[in-house]
Amino acid sequence: MFSPIDHAMMLRAIKLAKRGRFTTAPNPNVGCVIAQGTTIVGEGYHYQAGQPHAEVFALRAAGDHAEGATAYVTLEPCSHFGRTPPCAQALINAKVSRVVCAMVDPNPQVGGRGIEMLQVAGVEVQTGLLEADAQGLNAGFIKRMKTGLPYVQLKLASSLDGRTALANGESQWITSPQARADVQRFRACAGAILSTSATVLADDPSLNVRWDELGEQIQTEYPQEALRQPSRVIIDSQNRVTPDHQLFSLPGQSYLARAEAGVEVWSDSVTQLLIPCQPDSDLLDLSLLMAELAKQEINHIWVEAGAGLAGALLSAGLVDELIIYQAPKLMGSDSRGLIDLQGLTAMSQVPQLEITDVRMVGPDLRIIARV
Amino acid sequence: MFSPIDHAMMLRAIKLAKRGRFTTAPNPNVGCVIAQGTTIVGEGYHYQAGQPHAEVFALRAAGDHAEGATAYVTLEPCSHFGRTPPCAQALINAKVSRVVCAMVDPNPQVGGRGIEMLQVAGVEVQTGLLEADAQGLNAGFIKRMKTGLPYVQLKLASSLDGRTALANGESQWITSPQARADVQRFRACAGAILSTSATVLADDPSLNVRWDELGEQIQTEYPQEALRQPSRVIIDSQNRVTPDHQLFSLPGQSYLARAEAGVEVWSDSVTQLLIPCQPDSDLLDLSLLMAELAKQEINHIWVEAGAGLAGALLSAGLVDELIIYQAPKLMGSDSRGLIDLQGLTAMSQVPQLEITDVRMVGPDLRIIARV
Repeated sequence: MFSPIDHAMMLRAIKLAKRGRFTTAPNPNVGCVIAQGTTIVGEGYHYQAGQPHAEVFALRAAGDHAEGATAYVTLEPCSHFGRTPPCAQALINAKVSRVVCAMVDPNPQVGGRGIEMLQVAGVEVQTGLLEADAQGLNAGFIKRMKTGLPYVQLKLASSLDGRTALANGESQWITSPQARADVQRFRACAGAILSTSATVLADDPSLNVRWDELGEQIQTEYPQEALRQPSRVIIDSQNRVTPDHQLFSLPGQSYLARAEAGVEVWSDSVTQLLIPCQPDSDLLDLSLLMAELAKQEINHIWVEAGAGLAGALLSAGLVDELIIYQAPKLMGSDSRGLIDLQGLTAMSQVPQLEITDVRMVGPDLRIIARV
Repeated sequence: MFSPIDHAMMLRAIKLAKRGRFTTAPNPNVGCVIAQGTTIVGEGYHYQAGQPHAEVFALRAAGDHAEGATAYVTLEPCSHFGRTPPCAQALINAKVSRVVCAMVDPNPQVGGRGIEMLQVAGVEVQTGLLEADAQGLNAGFIKRMKTGLPYVQLKLASSLDGRTALANGESQWITSPQARADVQRFRACAGAILSTSATVLADDPSLNVRWDELGEQIQTEYPQEALRQPSRVIIDSQNRVTPDHQLFSLPGQSYLARAEAGVEVWSDSVTQLLIPCQPDSDLLDLSLLMAELAKQEINHIWVEAGAGLAGALLSAGLVDELIIYQAPKLMGSDSRGLIDLQGLTAMSQVPQLEITDVRMVGPDLRIIARV
C-alpha cells in the first residue's frame, strides 16, 4: 500500500514535526512534505500556536508545484476554522491529488472530518503510514484528546540504591550537571511542570527553562527569543506558598492547586485552581487536578517532586512514564526513599513497568520506563 | 612499535584466552598465537589447572613452523617449573625469534623473569600490546598477586527504586529468569561464591553452577563433564549452619568462616576457616577473611548476600565491582533496602562508583559499576 518513497517522505515529515516540540503547546507537533514522485516541492511544520499549520507552510513553498502532488502529513489535516482556515480545504484548493496521513486526528469530535473533506473533493487519501512514530510526536495531545487527562512524566533522581537524600536530609548534588541539563530539555518540551508546596518551601526553586542550559544543538533550532516557559503547577492544599517565592515572578503562567482560595494578592500570571480533596482527607484529589489541567489545555506534565507525590500519582494511575536518573553513588538503607507506596503486602501488588530506554547522561544513568 | 598485524594476532590470543574463563581457576586465563608474518602457524590457550599452558599447545600445533616465528602471548611466559616446565624455555627451544606479551606477570616474585630468560637466549621481546584488555582477562589473578586479596564482585538485585523485599519480607521473584541465568554465568567464572549463614538458614540455597542454565552458546564451549564448581564460602560467625544444609552435600569445596571451630562432623569437602572478629564485635574481620581466601588460591569472589554483608564489604573497601540487576518494578519506601551503610552524614562520605556497563537482560536492567 505504501512505497519506499512514501516511507522516506513521511520520515522527513516526522523529522520536520519534531522541530516544533518546544513551541507548539497546546497544539500538536505536525510536519508536512509535498512531493512530486521523488522530488520534494515543499515542506513545512507547525512552529507555534497561532502561527500557520504545517500544510500551509508546505503549500506556500510548493506554489504551483502542488498541483497533482502527494502531501505527506503526520496528522490528519484539520477541517475546521480555528485560529487558521482549514488545511484540508487549502490542500484541495492547491489541487493536491493525494494525501497520506500518518494518523487520524485523535480528537473524537473532529477525527476523520478532514479526510472526508478531502475525499469528497476527489483527493485520494491514505492513513496509517508510520503511525506509531507519529503518535510518539504527540503523546500528550493524543492522551488529552482521547481521555481528557494529560500525559504525565515523573522525573526521579536517586543513587544506584534508590535513595534521594541522607537521613539528615543532605542531598546536593546527587546527579551530575549533565543530568540536570537533560532535565532542562525535558522541561522545555512539557506543557507544565508540576511540583508541591513542600518543594517550593524547601528550595524556592525557579521551575523554569533556562535557555543557557539547553545545549548548543537545541539552541540553534530554538532561538532564545522564541523561548516558551512551561506553566508551573504547585499543589498547595494548605495554602502555604506566598507571592514572595521566586517562581511566581519569573516569566510564565503559574497555577496553584488548592482546596480553598487564599487571601494573598497574586499577579495576573498566577491562577488559583480549586480542587476538591479526596474523601476523608486533606489531600487534593489528584485525578480531578489532572482533569482540570487538561481543561486548561495542558497536554503534557513533567513532575518534579518528592517521594510522597510520586507515590500518590503512581497509586492513582496517573503516571504514564518515569524518567529516572541514577547517580553512581550508594547512600545506604538509612537514607531517604524514592517513592512512597502504601500498603504493599504481596509482590503481585507491586507496580510493573517496562523499560523503554536506557542511556548514560554524563556519569549518570537515565532510565525511561512506561507504567 | 606494534604493527596492525601485531594487534590482530594479540586480539586473537585474547579471544582464545577467554575460552578458559570457566575452568582455569586458580590459574590465569592465557592465550597464545604463533605466526609467521600474517600466517598463524599455531595457537592455544590454557584450559584447566594441571593441563599445559597456552604456549605449549600453540608450539605443538606450530611444530617446525615455530622457528623464526613471532609468539603472541597474553601474559608473560612462565620461567619456573610448576606443574609444567617453563614456557619461556619451550619458546627458546622452538627457536621462536620474537615474543610479544600483552602484560608482564603480575606476581612480583616472578614478574620479568620469563622475559629475561627469553632475552638472554637472544629472543626479541616486546610487552604492553593491548595490555588493558589482557588485564581484563584476569582481574582476580592480578589483584591476588599484587595485593594478596581476591577480586570481589558484589551481586545485587532490586526494584528500580532500590528495594529487595516488601516490608513483610516477601520478595520472590523480583528479577526475571533471564537475570537469574545471567547470574549463573557470573558464578561459573568465579573462584568462590560468598554468602552468609543468614542466607543459608533462610533459603537453604545450592549456590552452585547449574550447567542446564548456562545457555546454549556457553554449553557448546564448556561441556558438562568439564563443569567446575566454584567454592562456596559461608560467613557463619555464630556457628549456625549445619551439615544438613543442602549446599554442603553438593559437588565442590565449601569453606565455613567462623570465629571458633564448631563441633559438627563435616565431610572432607568442607573446611572451617577460623577468622578473628573485629575489635569489640562478634562480626568477623572481613579483611582477614579475604586475605585467608586469597591464601586458599581464590582469585575472584562472587558475593550473593543481604544488605548487611553488602554494606560491610563496601565500608571495608573490599568490593571491586557491583553487578546490579534492577527489575522494572517499584516497591516503595517501606520496602527493604539494598545496602546497609552506617553513619553517613554528608554527601562527601557517600561511596562513589563508575558505571562501566549497562544493558538489558530480558526485562531487567543490568548495571556494572566499579568502586
